[in-house]
Amino acid sequence: MTYQTANISIEKSESTKINSVDFSKLDFGKVFTDHMFVCDFENGEWQEPKIMPYQAMTFEPSARVFHYGQAVFEGMKAYKDHEGKVFLFRPKQNFERINKSAERLSMPAFPENYFFEGLEELLKLDNDWIKPGLGNSLYIRPFVIATEPAISASPASMYRFMIICSPAQSYYNSPVRVLVAEHYSRSANGGVGAAKAAGNYAAQFYPTSLAQKEGFHQIIWTDADTHTYLEEAGTMNVFFRVNDTLITAPVSDRILDGITRKSIIQLAEDLGIKCDVRPVKVEEIKKAAKDGSLKEVFGAGTAAVISEISAFQHKEELFEISGAEDSYAKLFKQTLLNIQYNVSEDKHGWRRAVK
Amino acid sequence: MTYQTANISIEKSESTKINSVDFSKLDFGKVFTDHMFVCDFENGEWQEPKIMPYQAMTFEPSARVFHYGQAVFEGMKAYKDHEGKVFLFRPKQNFERINKSAERLSMPAFPENYFFEGLEELLKLDNDWIKPGLGNSLYIRPFVIATEPAISASPASMYRFMIICSPAQSYYNSPVRVLVAEHYSRSANGGVGAAKAAGNYAAQFYPTSLAQKEGFHQIIWTDADTHTYLEEAGTMNVFFRVNDTLITAPVSDRILDGITRKSIIQLAEDLGIKCDVRPVKVEEIKKAAKDGSLKEVFGAGTAAVISEISAFQHKEELFEISGAEDSYAKLFKQTLLNIQYNVSEDKHGWRRAVK
Repeated sequence: MTYQTANISIEKSESTKINSVDFSKLDFGKVFTDHMFVCDFENGEWQEPKIMPYQAMTFEPSARVFHYGQAVFEGMKAYKDHEGKVFLFRPKQNFERINKSAERLSMPAFPENYFFEGLEELLKLDNDWIKPGLGNSLYIRPFVIATEPAISASPASMYRFMIICSPAQSYYNSPVRVLVAEHYSRSANGGVGAAKAAGNYAAQFYPTSLAQKEGFHQIIWTDADTHTYLEEAGTMNVFFRVNDTLITAPVSDRILDGITRKSIIQLAEDLGIKCDVRPVKVEEIKKAAKDGSLKEVFGAGTAAVISEISAFQHKEELFEISGAEDSYAKLFKQTLLNIQYNVSEDKHGWRRAVK
Repeated sequence: MTYQTANISIEKSESTKINSVDFSKLDFGKVFTDHMFVCDFENGEWQEPKIMPYQAMTFEPSARVFHYGQAVFEGMKAYKDHEGKVFLFRPKQNFERINKSAERLSMPAFPENYFFEGLEELLKLDNDWIKPGLGNSLYIRPFVIATEPAISASPASMYRFMIICSPAQSYYNSPVRVLVAEHYSRSANGGVGAAKAAGNYAAQFYPTSLAQKEGFHQIIWTDADTHTYLEEAGTMNVFFRVNDTLITAPVSDRILDGITRKSIIQLAEDLGIKCDVRPVKVEEIKKAAKDGSLKEVFGAGTAAVISEISAFQHKEELFEISGAEDSYAKLFKQTLLNIQYNVSEDKHGWRRAVK
């Protein structure tokens, strides 16, 4: 069946894969819903957006994304409450950020009406893939790739914007152990670290695999110049609780402006928890771990929501974090989930109902 | 027609596009030859390599290369002498470097026999696309992309290695004007700058476009920490001639180990030209430009061969470089071309004849 909304041409899938999916055993990002949103940029403008059955697509081997990594993405989630209503969490932040990332990579901005119309129509069509219940969600992946079939090392003239969706449980279920970077780096001053640029992620795979061989799940990156300041964890921003004060690094051109991060900073203010946004020295956190004032460390990101960090290692020295009884991580996680799943009041207007 | 070599299954194209190509007006990297080489990595090993007609291919929207930039490439050229013999230039260096790049991005190494057998068979099939005459060449683009259809931010388990070929003239024909980076950066200490990683290139597009608006062709990148040392130009390494001494920055984890670069260093030794490989301060080069001792600046890379740089700007200060009568750039370019096109002796064994 095909039909048309205000701006979008929709081809509905004739069948659904949903019955073949075990929603109790979901690996992150492996299963996708029945539909996807596609919009091409050609001749200087975005062409008619389409929703079509989820499918493989044809690309020229010379498509610039394959050669020069001109690609950006976002990560969002849709949540369903027990009445079956579907919500997004601060989606305008994702929309604005993907265009900011695109600008840093010399890619054209995507129109706001196409973005939200596409997203809403997609969620309507694939509504059954969004399962209610805290922790269940539909992970939404908007992304833009350079498709121009020419390998000169310059911005492309052709792009594809897509949204694909994957049912998800939370990304890290158990507390994670992290290694503090001493040699490798995630990003440079004046680089693309603040953008959700595709290449930022592959660049972390090798150092992360070395850390994993030593028994750690993730790396907390430090500044590339001196490796003395704690920055972010690649898929998460990081918070430290020293006594009853939260500390997190300021965003910069090296650190992603995380939406979960900024929500936690706001929630801390609401809850009367002091949150210092300032450069965080590795030595300061080690000292706090030694004298017992380091109560908690946790990561925050859309995929991970909030991940408690149970241990970190720096220069061969391992620090176990026992965790606090009045856990801030748990408090923030519950508060966020309650907002996201329409359980509690939403005084900042972060929820956006999908009609 | 299909047939089989030692390791490769070959499907020959039934027709050729060559008659539709104007070889006197080639835009870099837009036209591709009749065949391509493809080899997939699955189940922990490289599968049977194939040569097939050049064509678009199907990819899942969740292929990891689209999301996390897990992709590396090489740039090589094939040259034809006036007897119709075809040569590669130090191809083993490219083979070793693509595997070094792959390692840094947690990708599997490609087997040497597949690489060279694929390359040679491809060049035999597309021999007519290699035009004789200095400056004409066949640009060869080996690349590897992560194809696994799953968007978890970790190394893929499925890859595609490909070689595509595009007839080329030299990349920069006229002298280029460059801007010295003051704010933006190409790479970090401990990052992936030394790898030919796809994401390194898209990261340069935006700052380069800003420089182009000011009338410059390229950026010479500086160290991200202090912006006081000159590093490389993104698609070229850079050499400075002060009086009769060449200076170029040492390779590092931020600077690509260029094959043209290392060939020039060797040729300088052969020709009795002093070449200092050491960190190069911006201020030192500005001072040399002011006192007249800066005779030449040039870039060196496979695509560009050697590009004379006629001017550079740093902090609003513009320096025009008049060029020397006994140009080292021209001398190295001619010496390299003579080796590449089988005109002169090849005492280092850099040429490799394609049988």
